[in-house]
Amino acid sequence: MIAEIIATGEEIRTGALADTNSAHIAGCLEENGVEVVRLHGLGDDLGRLVAVFREVASRADVCVVTGGLGPTVDDLSAAAAAQAGGVPLVLEPRALAALEEFFRSRGRPLNPSNRKQAFLPEGAEMLPNPVGTAPGFALTIGRCRFFFLPGVPHEMRRMLASEVLPRIAALAGERREFRLARTLSCFGMTESRVGDRLEGLPAEVPGVRLGLRAHFPVIQVKLYAAGHEEQAVRRTLDRAAARARELLGAVVFGEGDESLAAVVGRRLLEDRASLAVAESCTGGLLAHLLTEIPGSSSWFRGGVVAYANEAKTELLGVSPQTIARRGAVHEETASEMAAGARRVFGASWGLSTTGIAGPTGGSAEKPVGTVCIGLCGPGDSPQAFRFRLNYDLRGRNKTVFACKALDLLRRALAGIPLEEG
Amino acid sequence: MIAEIIATGEEIRTGALADTNSAHIAGCLEENGVEVVRLHGLGDDLGRLVAVFREVASRADVCVVTGGLGPTVDDLSAAAAAQAGGVPLVLEPRALAALEEFFRSRGRPLNPSNRKQAFLPEGAEMLPNPVGTAPGFALTIGRCRFFFLPGVPHEMRRMLASEVLPRIAALAGERREFRLARTLSCFGMTESRVGDRLEGLPAEVPGVRLGLRAHFPVIQVKLYAAGHEEQAVRRTLDRAAARARELLGAVVFGEGDESLAAVVGRRLLEDRASLAVAESCTGGLLAHLLTEIPGSSSWFRGGVVAYANEAKTELLGVSPQTIARRGAVHEETASEMAAGARRVFGASWGLSTTGIAGPTGGSAEKPVGTVCIGLCGPGDSPQAFRFRLNYDLRGRNKTVFACKALDLLRRALAGIPLEEG
Repeated sequence: MIAEIIATGEEIRTGALADTNSAHIAGCLEENGVEVVRLHGLGDDLGRLVAVFREVASRADVCVVTGGLGPTVDDLSAAAAAQAGGVPLVLEPRALAALEEFFRSRGRPLNPSNRKQAFLPEGAEMLPNPVGTAPGFALTIGRCRFFFLPGVPHEMRRMLASEVLPRIAALAGERREFRLARTLSCFGMTESRVGDRLEGLPAEVPGVRLGLRAHFPVIQVKLYAAGHEEQAVRRTLDRAAARARELLGAVVFGEGDESLAAVVGRRLLEDRASLAVAESCTGGLLAHLLTEIPGSSSWFRGGVVAYANEAKTELLGVSPQTIARRGAVHEETASEMAAGARRVFGASWGLSTTGIAGPTGGSAEKPVGTVCIGLCGPGDSPQAFRFRLNYDLRGRNKTVFACKALDLLRRALAGIPLEEG
Repeated sequence: MIAEIIATGEEIRTGALADTNSAHIAGCLEENGVEVVRLHGLGDDLGRLVAVFREVASRADVCVVTGGLGPTVDDLSAAAAAQAGGVPLVLEPRALAALEEFFRSRGRPLNPSNRKQAFLPEGAEMLPNPVGTAPGFALTIGRCRFFFLPGVPHEMRRMLASEVLPRIAALAGERREFRLARTLSCFGMTESRVGDRLEGLPAEVPGVRLGLRAHFPVIQVKLYAAGHEEQAVRRTLDRAAARARELLGAVVFGEGDESLAAVVGRRLLEDRASLAVAESCTGGLLAHLLTEIPGSSSWFRGGVVAYANEAKTELLGVSPQTIARRGAVHEETASEMAAGARRVFGASWGLSTTGIAGPTGGSAEKPVGTVCIGLCGPGDSPQAFRFRLNYDLRGRNKTVFACKALDLLRRALAGIPLEEG
């Protein structure tokens, strides 16, 4: 089964609104074994809507259309569907009854523009809308079954799940394919190097398709497989994921959408350990990423954002001599910051960042992008590392510095040598 | 001038990623007087890419394509463009030189898969990418000038502004209309209330069109005007912006894309003042938002993320009696945290947050969404305020708590009464 998706509305065409509906629909269709081949965005233009509906009707099995079902004159989906299908618009008594009930239950009168919403293309099947005024409908045009849904996201999602997906599953019947995906998340390797490492994977694990997605600074490896037997598809993906982990090594930090901070937090919880941070160049971002994780208060003790040197010495106990001799951006300063955070907050681990996020503040010896990261655990004495990670924008540098710090802690917690690429 | 926009990539086709690039491009083209008529989303499928490029080549004047310029085998935009245009791919020496320079400056070798990015369709004009490895290019196919850009949003945005929009303006030449926009940013009022307040504006200022855009938790008011005389368009927008400010009052915190943190920082710099923060429920986000601003080290002293009560007492000097009597989430605790941050960091202003971001930790008296914000300035004694701002997700609650704190400080710095709606 081949599907296309059409989002309509002036706000889509002019970019006033990013089309998130189509991504949601595409994800649901793909999970249900329907291959989405094309997405369309169109304004409220009757001629263009009719032309695109006819085009899709000639080549797709299924099409989901969002928007244009409202009460105003620029809501054209029903009219365009009728014209593309060569049928008139007719009053649908069930749609009218549902509209009357909707307004009665809210104590408002049914006005003429809402009454327009009860006119559907002849032969259409009404799809009830339990949460809004606009009923949807299904209509076959050419070889394609079209499903028309409102553009309001929560109405669309509810109707997609309750009305559209079951009908599509019935259409697919025996032809249904299981299409599944697995995601491995990597940090510390460029997209092109990840691609090079995995180049041979599709040949080694037949039936698997590979996609890379850069979600700065994380590279996600997407593994896709499809087939008629669900268990076989799952086995293919298991083999592919295991082989990808072998090829990529320790840069793989997790699966699915789990963030670096979530992986670190899960591990700390398993170890009944706790963490405190001392941040200079990341300016609170490290603490913010950690406290995004629900339940983080059970393993995150707190942090100090020490922009000024006095804060480093007075709050964290960094020696003024170290700063005078080495400077604020140095491994020794980072070590003392990490040890200070651990001590001050009474945590089992201390993690620190000090560096130059830019755009100013760099020098020949310590250019923008220089970061020193300190790590102090329950057993050993503090360690520190220096990196040059310049991604041109202050915000991106802060992000990559914070993720590098989290990744060092992740490796330390997992017993992976910290020097490994 | 008629434009179409094409987003490519398996993540677009399968819905793994919502296509926000196309909305940004459509908005920029519309502001520059180009009518966008159709958006397309496609996977990494050579045949379909070629077919759609040819289709668009036969009817549009301009087309912007994103994605598919990376180094891996599923990056097919250059190959598809060459095939649609009936030309071979050739090595572009300037693209190769730019790639070599990019890798040299980062001390990394140019590998073969990155070298592939220097092959462009014959006759294409290279568009330099100052922030990534993938150069873009422009190519005429049929009647349409195509512009190919990377899919990484910040690379795409930068190249669209510096390389594509000026070329499109030159193509438009004398036919050009001035389509300008002004943006006012509001915090602390719902989108529907902003809409109600501005309902009469288009009638009061003829020629202005109004759009609202929710960028949580900020509501942006977009004012659009168009015409052949630039000065007249600017005057219309000036009048509309002045009237919108009158109608909305103090909830308007800035213009354009300036964030709340940037407005606060600009004001602190003007006052030669400085700021320190003490965060509990916002967990570092407040410091992170402030340190996103370039140059923030000249007015931001630092912060403490005090999740544990001991951190509040030991690092910030909050009285243990206050916490025992009032609890961690209370105006008195917030006041003492703000005063402590100000004192410890030697700043002119102290700002604090303590509250319950959720999903757990709420009670009947202090449900999830409760936040106390403390503020301590150079003159007066500390003040504190309590709000209930629950937006269902931990991350959204942290965001709205941090913005509420920044907005209180903004109002204090501007002399706006802090109680005003």
